[in-house]
Amino acid sequence: TVYKIAAIPGDGIGVDITEAAEQVLDTLAATNGTFKFEYTTFDWSSKAYKERGWYMQDDWEAQLKKHDAIYFGAVGWPDVPDHISLWSMILPIRNTMNQYVNVRPTRILKGTTAPLAQLQKTPSELDWVIVRENSEGEYAGQGGTTHAHGPNAIATEVAIFTRVGIERIMRFAFETAKSRPRRKLTMVTKSNAQRHGMVLWDKVFYDVAKEYEGVVEFDKMLVDAMTVRMVNKPESLDTIVATNLHADILSDLAAALAGSIGIAPSSNLDPTRSCPSMFEPIHGSAPDIAGKGIANPIGAFWSAAEMVRWVGKGELDAVADQFMQAIENVTGNPKTRTRDMGGSAGTTEVTEAVCREIERV
Amino acid sequence: TVYKIAAIPGDGIGVDITEAAEQVLDTLAATNGTFKFEYTTFDWSSKAYKERGWYMQDDWEAQLKKHDAIYFGAVGWPDVPDHISLWSMILPIRNTMNQYVNVRPTRILKGTTAPLAQLQKTPSELDWVIVRENSEGEYAGQGGTTHAHGPNAIATEVAIFTRVGIERIMRFAFETAKSRPRRKLTMVTKSNAQRHGMVLWDKVFYDVAKEYEGVVEFDKMLVDAMTVRMVNKPESLDTIVATNLHADILSDLAAALAGSIGIAPSSNLDPTRSCPSMFEPIHGSAPDIAGKGIANPIGAFWSAAEMVRWVGKGELDAVADQFMQAIENVTGNPKTRTRDMGGSAGTTEVTEAVCREIERV
Ligand SMILES: CC(C)[C@H](C(=O)O)[C@@H](O)C(=O)O
Ligand SMILES: CC(C)[C@H](C(=O)O)[C@@H](O)C(=O)O
Repeated sequence: TVYKIAAIPGDGIGVDITEAAEQVLDTLAATNGTFKFEYTTFDWSSKAYKERGWYMQDDWEAQLKKHDAIYFGAVGWPDVPDHISLWSMILPIRNTMNQYVNVRPTRILKGTTAPLAQLQKTPSELDWVIVRENSEGEYAGQGGTTHAHGPNAIATEVAIFTRVGIERIMRFAFETAKSRPRRKLTMVTKSNAQRHGMVLWDKVFYDVAKEYEGVVEFDKMLVDAMTVRMVNKPESLDTIVATNLHADILSDLAAALAGSIGIAPSSNLDPTRSCPSMFEPIHGSAPDIAGKGIANPIGAFWSAAEMVRWVGKGELDAVADQFMQAIENVTGNPKTRTRDMGGSAGTTEVTEAVCREIERV
Repeated sequence: TVYKIAAIPGDGIGVDITEAAEQVLDTLAATNGTFKFEYTTFDWSSKAYKERGWYMQDDWEAQLKKHDAIYFGAVGWPDVPDHISLWSMILPIRNTMNQYVNVRPTRILKGTTAPLAQLQKTPSELDWVIVRENSEGEYAGQGGTTHAHGPNAIATEVAIFTRVGIERIMRFAFETAKSRPRRKLTMVTKSNAQRHGMVLWDKVFYDVAKEYEGVVEFDKMLVDAMTVRMVNKPESLDTIVATNLHADILSDLAAALAGSIGIAPSSNLDPTRSCPSMFEPIHGSAPDIAGKGIANPIGAFWSAAEMVRWVGKGELDAVADQFMQAIENVTGNPKTRTRDMGGSAGTTEVTEAVCREIERV
């Protein structure tokens, strides 16, 4: 089987880690022998934008749709305003490709030192999946500015919540919770202060919850109090569902609490499979370390492993597990950890170590 | 001098800690001898609402305006939907009383164990003031629901940002940073994804920053990445300015990282002094421990100390410092810490210990 991958390295360390991910994916395919990956690389980046004035071709949708999955590095560079770069690429892709779910697993990989004192005793106490609503809410893009240049400037951000949009993410979250050993779902909200859209969010949650009564244990948290619980009682959490913005914030916090933003993966899924899904590490383009060969590729590899699982539709689960095992063998070895994980290895060393482990396990 | 305080104990542990705060404030006044506090207690609570159908009298504004300050316990109770209780009391007070600044200092009080492993070495590394925009943004209350009861329900939350609103909070934040030894300000935003109101937020920040060039060191962080920095590099932060929602989330996280949500204070300020300002601990009504006599009153005392500073207009600063010293003598003693701080003392014991320390120092 040949899997067609649209590769978008993007900016900064996105380039380094996409290259590393492809090398590791090719090793996985070669070792296994029954499938391979074919990449189309798109030079959609802030650098290209500065030169030619556009990020993506007008027919980008059609181009992407020819692929089984999209692998995304990172986007954002100091000389282009972030709202331009992101609304020219990553956000339109998520929205247009019907990727209404963003899945962000977090756990303490072998060899990772979590910054929480209490967690250093029992790393298994932090094992979460954050299910992020990825198509509406605070990222709907609506709103505008009036009297922009004067003292009376007023601007709005309009968050949109629809029953259809909420229902499908809640159902996905309950199914995710149901598939995990602890079968627990925590819904995050801010309906005490946000009394329109977030109240609908809560209401639909409880409607869907009725179908899972007795099957999944569920509770509700305010987003501010949720950060406290993540710090103090990580073991009380399992699957988490939150809005586009809340989950964006909580997933970065989760990665930090688990030890490093450099290890965290994300999957932008179209569960209907009418469009290709997109896989990307949650870290950004990291201008400060770009081109230095020291970026941590682990988040990129974990994202690649999730991509393997997704395109395989159940047939490559064992391969993805083997991949994750290889990753943890490498993070478990002090000699093959990058700086953010307390080591001194470079991107290439970690990548080669993972390739060797894949060949071995 | 007599300071008139409007006391609103509200719900749950709000009642316990308001009583404790009054006892401590009275001890402070008696020990000092040159001023005293006169309280009007308002029975505005969820319990009262259930009985009589309203939280505050129609002339609540006029009633509150007769006072020099408002002391607020907590609001929120399981049998009233949170968006009803909050929009019936705390949020209208903040908005109507022109309290456009919410100041939330966080540091590791003596005797507090921060959950971050690296912080246990050097508690002085976490010393922040979060300046929260308190009058607009995501808490503007605008938005609505259409087709509420059908499958096509759609609801919006409209965040409003005005140049006037942003400018005044930025100026307050820069002045706060300027008054602190390190003179650093970090501005938090999400203008990469939220491209209207948050872009205005950034723009006005840089406009105001021009006036502080060379005086205050400043930088900008995305809210998601900010949580990572709070966990990993707490010592790199000093004063922080953020929107209503972002600061709500970050200030809870800050309190958790500093050791307990039970110790954190907040001041809702009208810097023009045309209306009374309001002081409240950042914790909620905590239904699970209400009435058990175990609530941590330290956040309430710290808030009371900030109230003393505010009503004193510079004349009670030494008294407020003495008050804080007494608080830290008590948290520094293992025998007078509540459960959340690793001890076993009750609210009354802690309160009496603080009174004794005030008399002593
Ligand atoms: C780059 C940015 C738009 C993005 C987001 O906020 O969704 C990133 O922070 C993420 O979490 O994937
Ligand atoms: C009670 C609630 C409305 C409030 C807020 O979100 O502002 C609380 O969380 C706080 O931080 O003061």
